[in-house]
Amino acid sequence: MRNYNMYDLIQKKKTGGELSRAEIDFMVKNYTGDIIPDYQMSAMMMAIFFEGMNEEETLFLTEAMAKSGDMLDLSAIKGIKVDKHSTGGVGDKTSLALAPMVAACGLKVAKMSGRGLGHTGGTIDKLESFPGFTTEICVDKFINNVNEIGMAIMGQTNELAPADKKLYALRDVTATVDQMSLIASSIMSKKLAAGADAIVLDVKTGSGAFMKEEKDAVLLAEEMYRIGNNAGRKTIALVTDMDQPLGLAVGNSLEVKEAIETLKGNGPADFVELCVALGAQMLIAGGLALNQEEGEAKIRATIKDGSALKMMAGFITAQGGDAAYVYHPEKLPGAAIIEPVFSPGPGYIEKIICDEIGRCSLILGGGRVTKDSIIDLAVGIVLTKKVGSQVSQGEVLAYIHGNDSGKIAEAKERLLGAYKISENKVEVPLLIKRVIS
Amino acid sequence: MRNYNMYDLIQKKKTGGELSRAEIDFMVKNYTGDIIPDYQMSAMMMAIFFEGMNEEETLFLTEAMAKSGDMLDLSAIKGIKVDKHSTGGVGDKTSLALAPMVAACGLKVAKMSGRGLGHTGGTIDKLESFPGFTTEICVDKFINNVNEIGMAIMGQTNELAPADKKLYALRDVTATVDQMSLIASSIMSKKLAAGADAIVLDVKTGSGAFMKEEKDAVLLAEEMYRIGNNAGRKTIALVTDMDQPLGLAVGNSLEVKEAIETLKGNGPADFVELCVALGAQMLIAGGLALNQEEGEAKIRATIKDGSALKMMAGFITAQGGDAAYVYHPEKLPGAAIIEPVFSPGPGYIEKIICDEIGRCSLILGGGRVTKDSIIDLAVGIVLTKKVGSQVSQGEVLAYIHGNDSGKIAEAKERLLGAYKISENKVEVPLLIKRVIS
Repeated sequence: MRNYNMYDLIQKKKTGGELSRAEIDFMVKNYTGDIIPDYQMSAMMMAIFFEGMNEEETLFLTEAMAKSGDMLDLSAIKGIKVDKHSTGGVGDKTSLALAPMVAACGLKVAKMSGRGLGHTGGTIDKLESFPGFTTEICVDKFINNVNEIGMAIMGQTNELAPADKKLYALRDVTATVDQMSLIASSIMSKKLAAGADAIVLDVKTGSGAFMKEEKDAVLLAEEMYRIGNNAGRKTIALVTDMDQPLGLAVGNSLEVKEAIETLKGNGPADFVELCVALGAQMLIAGGLALNQEEGEAKIRATIKDGSALKMMAGFITAQGGDAAYVYHPEKLPGAAIIEPVFSPGPGYIEKIICDEIGRCSLILGGGRVTKDSIIDLAVGIVLTKKVGSQVSQGEVLAYIHGNDSGKIAEAKERLLGAYKISENKVEVPLLIKRVIS
Repeated sequence: MRNYNMYDLIQKKKTGGELSRAEIDFMVKNYTGDIIPDYQMSAMMMAIFFEGMNEEETLFLTEAMAKSGDMLDLSAIKGIKVDKHSTGGVGDKTSLALAPMVAACGLKVAKMSGRGLGHTGGTIDKLESFPGFTTEICVDKFINNVNEIGMAIMGQTNELAPADKKLYALRDVTATVDQMSLIASSIMSKKLAAGADAIVLDVKTGSGAFMKEEKDAVLLAEEMYRIGNNAGRKTIALVTDMDQPLGLAVGNSLEVKEAIETLKGNGPADFVELCVALGAQMLIAGGLALNQEEGEAKIRATIKDGSALKMMAGFITAQGGDAAYVYHPEKLPGAAIIEPVFSPGPGYIEKIICDEIGRCSLILGGGRVTKDSIIDLAVGIVLTKKVGSQVSQGEVLAYIHGNDSGKIAEAKERLLGAYKISENKVEVPLLIKRVIS
């Protein structure tokens, strides 16, 4: 590998220059190896914030970070492996229902997931609602399960894109997170390292998403779309609504219950719509559907014929969990107190400030404030009304599931403040705003 | 002192915000105290590179850095204390001649100087050509000498503006040096801490200066002018030519000899012109002259009546040096070999690439490459022709003073490459380009 002077690279970027692949490789390798100090890298990140990176530089950075640790080799799994990634939001339990659906269609699902820092836990935390279930499985067992059952989910290891981990921690304390190419390369470096052949991205937008503005979400989606395809992985990106919570349940075991109900055919309309749309794209990317229509029909069939639910049960069993909970979700962790929240007036729900609902979940103990926080899997919120719903005065807007009456009172006040009720009829908002493929 | 979050301050500056005095004080204090880490400060410096600082922020930063260590108290010296600062260049021995001149006029000169990293040493290195001379004197003796003799020069202590020292070292490795407000505040913080009531600045421009372009030199001069006056110190800035070496001598003891010759009335025209112009401004700032004309006359008189030379001798003696060398400069360190460089053709000197002459001095051993380099005080270059001079083929352009024939050969080639000779008559360039007062 050629040697460069990090000073010269900062100077180049600062003055609007373009970094070559060799320069970016040098920078990422030596930063990961603690040879380039943090103070030079943070100056570089700030220079990138102002000067940006072009399509090539962004690809080079992503690939350099992906290669900084282990690259998962999924070649032992037959067929096209399709990964799915969501930028996250309130009530986003998509992986829980979507993975069994597409696996039931015959698409091999080999998914790496993380724990969450926010209003609820991540996919792994949610799955731990099943007693005995674990994602701490070795790569051999992971691959074996995918081949035998059709799907497996394992925890993200520290060896996956360590450069991204180190760089993100630095950006997080130097006000250099909010740069589109850096955000995109951070996400995509982990996806590339996770080994899938194709990637379907769900980029959220709205008050409950990282990207508040739709135009920013579209930019991020396009940036990731380009990185993925430039890196030789077929990539499709959807921009979807997160201006109100997804589905009705927010909270760990509450979301698992909703995912199971969805597999049984009782899912909330918006959540079903999203799973079907994403699932269809995954089947197209995996060569199991020719078009959106065929893909959607196949996904819907897995609900109707019970094959998705059966897949879920098999997957939970294979990773040490008790499948009885899949068929009897009422056995999953439940809160001691369930308190209804009543509508202050009649009308139509005009707005539900999405991040405020997330904040309620956090207040109840459903999320992590710091990395070491312990999550209460049982607590959360179940909405009964969403944007566009008609409501009469005193009708239930939502149920708060909690284990502490003080926290419930706080969450209740906050929840009421998040609703805006209009006298006029309100349209149900569009869920899927854009498909970039 | 109020507490802030450095992350918020970076974010504020990054998005075009304005930092308050309290925020800048917090930042400088906690960076100097190793509480704010380098990686946050370098991100801030890069944000400042792109977003700039306004007049107030620049003043706040300068004052915060000045106050970060000892502030020299010169109140025990009677009268207005006037300091002079040059941004430096090739053959810049101004302080050596100017200080005795203005001191001979009755202006108290209490000057702090540094060692140089570059083509020659700094003022202190040059003065060490006098055997026994030292600038390592305590503040009491420094003040005492100024009161008794009229002038003193002491070495800059580590306690002077330590924040600037730490910050400059960081900027130097993160490509954040070249920002006008940061350059200006770095220089001015040391000047404010050094305690003078008034400051005369000599901002150099041209190929031998830090500011290659005159417009940049003017911007820097104006920025420092504003900082000084806003900080309550009467400040005057001159922008002067450094597109060819100043005077004829480049090299440590060679420059001391030229300074002494200047005090005797035998100085090169441009160097005399500069000393007279700066001296006049210092006398005006110190209340010892009403206008430029009167100031210039007083300075010239100190040469004519020998009082400046006498002041030099007294000053050298008071700081442990042998004044006999002032009257017999031929006793100062001399090189073993003096080799003439002949003109390759006839014509007029059109250009002398100034930094190339500095490079010759460095090759001969006259400057420091690293902080630990040992300077050869004897070596250097003495020009015989300057821009505008007529020259015939084979006439001497310059003499190289060296102690190593290999280095002399290298310097000679480089020196010849620095000259451009024209067939047409060339005007003598303007030395003093701007006075900002």
